[in-house]
Amino acid sequence: MAFAEAPSYTRRKAESDKKSMSETRTGAQSLLSTFVDAGVDVCFTNPGTSEMHFVAALDEEPGMRAILGLFEGVVTGAADGYGRMTGRPACTLLHLGPGLANGLANLHNARRANTPIINVVGEHATYHRRLDAPLTSDIEGFASPVSGWIHVSESAESVAADAARAVQASLQPPGQIATLILPADTAWNPAGGAAEFLAPAARAPADDAAIDAVADALRSGEPCTFLLNGQGVSERSLQLISRIAQQTNARFFGDTFISRVQRGAGRVDLERLPYFAEQAEEVLAGTRHLILVGTKAPVSFFAYPGRASELTPEGATALTLAAPHEDAESALEALVEAIGAGNHAPELAGMNRPSLPDGHLEPGSIARSIAALMPEDAILVNEAATSGFGIPPLTATSAPHDWLDLTGGSIGIGLPLAVGAAVACPDRRVIALQADGSGMYTVQALWTMARENLDVTVIVFANRKYAILQVEFMRVGAHNPGPKAMSMLDLGNPDLSWVDLARGMGVPGRRVTDAGAFNDALAESLATPGPYVIEAMI
Amino acid sequence: MAFAEAPSYTRRKAESDKKSMSETRTGAQSLLSTFVDAGVDVCFTNPGTSEMHFVAALDEEPGMRAILGLFEGVVTGAADGYGRMTGRPACTLLHLGPGLANGLANLHNARRANTPIINVVGEHATYHRRLDAPLTSDIEGFASPVSGWIHVSESAESVAADAARAVQASLQPPGQIATLILPADTAWNPAGGAAEFLAPAARAPADDAAIDAVADALRSGEPCTFLLNGQGVSERSLQLISRIAQQTNARFFGDTFISRVQRGAGRVDLERLPYFAEQAEEVLAGTRHLILVGTKAPVSFFAYPGRASELTPEGATALTLAAPHEDAESALEALVEAIGAGNHAPELAGMNRPSLPDGHLEPGSIARSIAALMPEDAILVNEAATSGFGIPPLTATSAPHDWLDLTGGSIGIGLPLAVGAAVACPDRRVIALQADGSGMYTVQALWTMARENLDVTVIVFANRKYAILQVEFMRVGAHNPGPKAMSMLDLGNPDLSWVDLARGMGVPGRRVTDAGAFNDALAESLATPGPYVIEAMI
Repeated sequence: MAFAEAPSYTRRKAESDKKSMSETRTGAQSLLSTFVDAGVDVCFTNPGTSEMHFVAALDEEPGMRAILGLFEGVVTGAADGYGRMTGRPACTLLHLGPGLANGLANLHNARRANTPIINVVGEHATYHRRLDAPLTSDIEGFASPVSGWIHVSESAESVAADAARAVQASLQPPGQIATLILPADTAWNPAGGAAEFLAPAARAPADDAAIDAVADALRSGEPCTFLLNGQGVSERSLQLISRIAQQTNARFFGDTFISRVQRGAGRVDLERLPYFAEQAEEVLAGTRHLILVGTKAPVSFFAYPGRASELTPEGATALTLAAPHEDAESALEALVEAIGAGNHAPELAGMNRPSLPDGHLEPGSIARSIAALMPEDAILVNEAATSGFGIPPLTATSAPHDWLDLTGGSIGIGLPLAVGAAVACPDRRVIALQADGSGMYTVQALWTMARENLDVTVIVFANRKYAILQVEFMRVGAHNPGPKAMSMLDLGNPDLSWVDLARGMGVPGRRVTDAGAFNDALAESLATPGPYVIEAMI
Repeated sequence: MAFAEAPSYTRRKAESDKKSMSETRTGAQSLLSTFVDAGVDVCFTNPGTSEMHFVAALDEEPGMRAILGLFEGVVTGAADGYGRMTGRPACTLLHLGPGLANGLANLHNARRANTPIINVVGEHATYHRRLDAPLTSDIEGFASPVSGWIHVSESAESVAADAARAVQASLQPPGQIATLILPADTAWNPAGGAAEFLAPAARAPADDAAIDAVADALRSGEPCTFLLNGQGVSERSLQLISRIAQQTNARFFGDTFISRVQRGAGRVDLERLPYFAEQAEEVLAGTRHLILVGTKAPVSFFAYPGRASELTPEGATALTLAAPHEDAESALEALVEAIGAGNHAPELAGMNRPSLPDGHLEPGSIARSIAALMPEDAILVNEAATSGFGIPPLTATSAPHDWLDLTGGSIGIGLPLAVGAAVACPDRRVIALQADGSGMYTVQALWTMARENLDVTVIVFANRKYAILQVEFMRVGAHNPGPKAMSMLDLGNPDLSWVDLARGMGVPGRRVTDAGAFNDALAESLATPGPYVIEAMI
């Protein structure tokens, strides 16, 4: 993660050396020891036969926590949430190519979030692969579109060293997905002890010339706009940006979707580039210097007939102050120095909670209720889609909190992300802002919330449609939808019952139809340990 | 599908030509017309913004039925079930790389079943792809491990012809997955009319020398065993095999997992090669000539330490009579002729239903109840895993039915397969034999059953564990599982409630704990249109 603390790696080398001398260890054991020694101590799993030696090794490695998901999209999305909140990789345990395949969509999102994740994908024994058994597939092919690093272990003796390289690769700035494919015999054959931790490269310093160019642009008096993401939205970075903005009248925006940002009272508020391209164009109009920190030049999410896809205004120059893998904080510090902005104090949001709403339940009243009631240090996971637009303005002046977005546009990450964030931060309340259509993709995450007794409040915005698609249908120029088209965008017939779904997976819940009942349900959930589903009928 | 009737292609060329002259059509419209003209008239969908013009075109193409799934694993698994039952491809509609990714695991299964399927995968507009927007990914990379044919349309004018080639490719014997990637502008830009149907290649005739070699082996008096799959298990093939077996004392077995076989009273019963390798070795012991029809030499499903992976007995010769893409029926006819087996009548199973069980509910009593009550022409979809072992022997002499297996080992296909089979055969009852762990992978399929009011009886074998993994844990030599290992194989804590899950998706259901209640629930469901879930506590 761009802005996380440097991981503190628990070294237990002496211990593990001792262990390796006293008994025969398997490749799977050497893998787990290497991970735990490197601070990788949570594994989200859905194993099968080829992973049984990894599973067996869990009981001999007390440092590794294993958390079962009933579907691999839960597993990978949870690893994303964990990685975003800790800056350290979780590992996943996946069953051959199809198990990995089920987790790919959320790995796509994690790739866009630059989250460090280590996938351990079981494979047939080395000598079994050529036989084309039913579960044989091109695992590297499946892994390739989402992975920054892929390796197949070919012997038990190499597994520990491969695991150390996987950890290192996952932490390569700004963070990436490392996929280690583990043939079953490399897990069950004898191996040595743990391999030593390999430190990842540090973030590259930003180019001095880039800092000078940005300083010149800021001094020119021409309209400047910062666009921020990654390390560029860390609490420290935003404080530096705030100083610069006061000194220069430059404006600053975050990308539409950000992996993690700390906001609320006491933090610098970050406005976002709007989702709809024409609104983004309006926001950026007039800019002469578009300054990129931890991100790249903005483009529209989708193409629309007759509209430009690139959002950098005509006549504007895009300047990269720090690329996503570079050290944005140092670059911003140098910039503050260069333009003499050091005397400004950052402008921090104050605390100004709204009053509790009553009456009709709609997305706006839910936003007010959340802003009124959310506890300190909550983690808000946003997959609310169209229903969530009103929440950021109201929570900007509520209790300080973390905010996690859907970064890759692949819906179905909200509930898994909440699982991972809750595992990462057991002392904090997670509030999952969940659209109903998206939530159904990985609804199995509720079961893991119950099993691990995670403090997650799930707010389902039950509008019973793919509302964003009803908007987009018009925006792409497909007019006058008929009944067949509309039925593809509609989740009614039959209506879902999220309270029943939750109960089916051991999570209590309540359906609410007015703002007062929503307030009560939210207050009750926030005061009660464990998961809870509020089905908000909007 | 190996043994399906040749599709009868409804030609509507005159009509579509007329249409194309009278109005401007989009690429999406030309795609749908081409599909419908070629007999591809069911589309399982989960669309997004980039597919909105395809969705819009649905209302102008009355011949295309569109069926929404709430998750893409439902979509692709349903296409598999539809293709297995009709021999014709359904098309899927998937949202860019991540939408395809969510459907890959069941496409892996469909690839192993040789099911014809056409994936239509939306993509960013041609000019938008290079911008690396959040949803951009390597779609061809995701598609490659499961697809026999992949093509990216580059202009609206080419879409119709590309669609015709996709249909042809999907029907290439023995059937395969064709993936057509459709950039949004090729769907929305103007295009011409439908493209003409392109007939797929016929099955290649089996080699005469192969037929002679098998005839020699059968005449040698040495022990011969047939291993069958694909077209080799068609009703016609099994009747021919039965004649050969009577003439020669050759034995015959089906592969452990088969995409579709017709069985029950009036059909030739097909014993299967056991799942566990040591049992399969026992069955094949003593064979000198292993004759392969529509399959390849047998291998164990997984590798186990110290055990052979190849199951062809030492000293035996494997002879391929017909490869999966070859004409097995003609080859078997020639073989009957060559060895003079034509005078034998096929040995057909009689009707001998068991009595209804009472007392304790366990997999054996459920098998009896099903065999006692199942209607004529039911379609049994088997993802019962360890709980299903007792069902084939008892149903072999019950009403004639079709039986569909999990072919690729990727669990989570049962409920989607049932959706597709029910759509394909609206006059037949589908009985989904569903393990609870596997069922959770694609539980969203229940919603589509309710929405389409499909006649599916879902029997959930609720043993609340990954029972097969508890067996496999020992078999791979991982002894003395501790509590952490066991918790990875266990679905308790919390217990799932399938009745609540079903209710949450609009499907009625009932939990039963004894055999009498199971009989009642099954009889009631079989007599009632629409879906029903029986949660059998075993």
